[in-house]
Amino acid sequence: MTELLLIGIGTGNPDHITREGIAAIRAADLILIPRKGAGKSDLAGLRERIIAEATDTPPQIAYFDIPARRAEDGYLKGVDDWHDAIALRWQAAIEEYPAAARVALLIWGDPSLYDSSLRIAARLDPQPKVRVIPGITALQALTAAHGIPVNELGAPFLVTTGRRLRDEGWPPATDTASVMLDGECSFQALEMADYHIWWGAYVGMEEQILVAGPLDRVASRIIETRARARADHGWIMDIYLLKKRGN
Amino acid sequence: MTELLLIGIGTGNPDHITREGIAAIRAADLILIPRKGAGKSDLAGLRERIIAEATDTPPQIAYFDIPARRAEDGYLKGVDDWHDAIALRWQAAIEEYPAAARVALLIWGDPSLYDSSLRIAARLDPQPKVRVIPGITALQALTAAHGIPVNELGAPFLVTTGRRLRDEGWPPATDTASVMLDGECSFQALEMADYHIWWGAYVGMEEQILVAGPLDRVASRIIETRARARADHGWIMDIYLLKKRGN
Ligand SMILES: C[S@@+](CC[C@H](N)C(=O)[O-])C[C@H]1O[C@@H](n2cnc3c(N)ncnc32)[C@H](O)[C@@H]1O
Ligand SMILES: C[S@@+](CC[C@H](N)C(=O)[O-])C[C@H]1O[C@@H](n2cnc3c(N)ncnc32)[C@H](O)[C@@H]1O
Repeated sequence: MTELLLIGIGTGNPDHITREGIAAIRAADLILIPRKGAGKSDLAGLRERIIAEATDTPPQIAYFDIPARRAEDGYLKGVDDWHDAIALRWQAAIEEYPAAARVALLIWGDPSLYDSSLRIAARLDPQPKVRVIPGITALQALTAAHGIPVNELGAPFLVTTGRRLRDEGWPPATDTASVMLDGECSFQALEMADYHIWWGAYVGMEEQILVAGPLDRVASRIIETRARARADHGWIMDIYLLKKRGN
Repeated sequence: MTELLLIGIGTGNPDHITREGIAAIRAADLILIPRKGAGKSDLAGLRERIIAEATDTPPQIAYFDIPARRAEDGYLKGVDDWHDAIALRWQAAIEEYPAAARVALLIWGDPSLYDSSLRIAARLDPQPKVRVIPGITALQALTAAHGIPVNELGAPFLVTTGRRLRDEGWPPATDTASVMLDGECSFQALEMADYHIWWGAYVGMEEQILVAGPLDRVASRIIETRARARADHGWIMDIYLLKKRGN
């Protein structure tokens, strides 16, 4: 392998793919597709569909299983070990196709945002040239679905995680925050009467669910909707934007 | 008009357009293209090219001139009046095509991010249905070009403006900030030895320029490169990502 392409594919809508992404799929000799195991949200089917729609002569596809993540040694150490393990899977899959010069991965959303692929790629040996093709993020899919700007006029915004919101409370120096990677509806840790929320699950996908309103008024609806959808589908991805009220 | 489409087109690379964006261009009856006057960065040519590549039967195109912005009454009042004035131009252009049910605008980057089109659309009377099609942002184009993630592992990041960075200094509670809308290399207001910068101008375009390094070591190179490029082209768009060092 001489070049690794990390291709952002957007967040579940196959039409999020860019023309640059389609060209990169066509240029690839081999595409690696992750599998998480039966009934999980690996969404391999979406990736296969994007490839099929991008080209009449699809490149080789190699599947690899995503190893389990161990938490016992603390969060950061666990993630680090996990990245090492995934890099070995990539390496093994790639070595089965020695003739493939250009290898691609289809990255959920944008490869820059809460995604490990750049860090995993840095572990490959020998180190290939890495090219990133940007894709639509979950935050953009959310604001587009609600038809809202992310920022107030000339104002900053923070992108953060559920864990940080729970542990640290509302971030100082901004009235707008987007929360990702939140399995626990962490907005409940806030003084809810002070915020407005725009929430979305499966954003951009057929299953999309949107709820917006004053946080204290819609919080329980979001919590229930989320729990029900998660039970129905077996998995969920959700994201939200919070703004201080009176802005 | 019954529907207004705000189509994110990315940041100058015509291949940033998504399949959803191409379909929306094809579905439009009329596309409004802004003009800023000779020698300015209105980039009308790029929009025309994207339309021509999206469809063999291009929709009607109506050009409108972007009115001048007046600053005398303060920043927010100036912006507000300016949005009123642009809304009148849109309205006038649209009224010349009474048969056009679906009207589109091609929005630089993503319509949610430091962009006025949603606020201008809200001023139209009667109020059309507004649909947003997300596009690649300048921040994603920047991180892709440098091949870097925007966030540290599980950590937050702030997106802000040059004005805010100058006026308020480094934002609390985050080690990563992206700065847009900065005409003055406002990173100079920081304790430069403490930061690393990834800077880009004309990102995604043929003219793309990238500089990265410890801020104190590359600041003067960025300032000079920016001034020269701006003089050569007559305009510039630049963006950067800053991270506290030792992270
Ligand atoms: C590991 S991060 C990957 C983010 C991705 N790289 C991006 O650019 O959006 C996964 C998180 O993204 C958000 N997310 C991704 N896809 C989503 C979708 N279709 N709907 C709602 N949230 C989504 C959720 O917050 C989820 O926890
Ligand atoms: C009015 S904002 C529009 C942002 C756009 N909606 C987006 O999603 O990127 C303009 C600012 O975006 C940044 N920008 C837009 N396109 C850029 C490019 N091709 N290269 C560098 N910066 C760019 C610059 O910071 C510029 O001042």
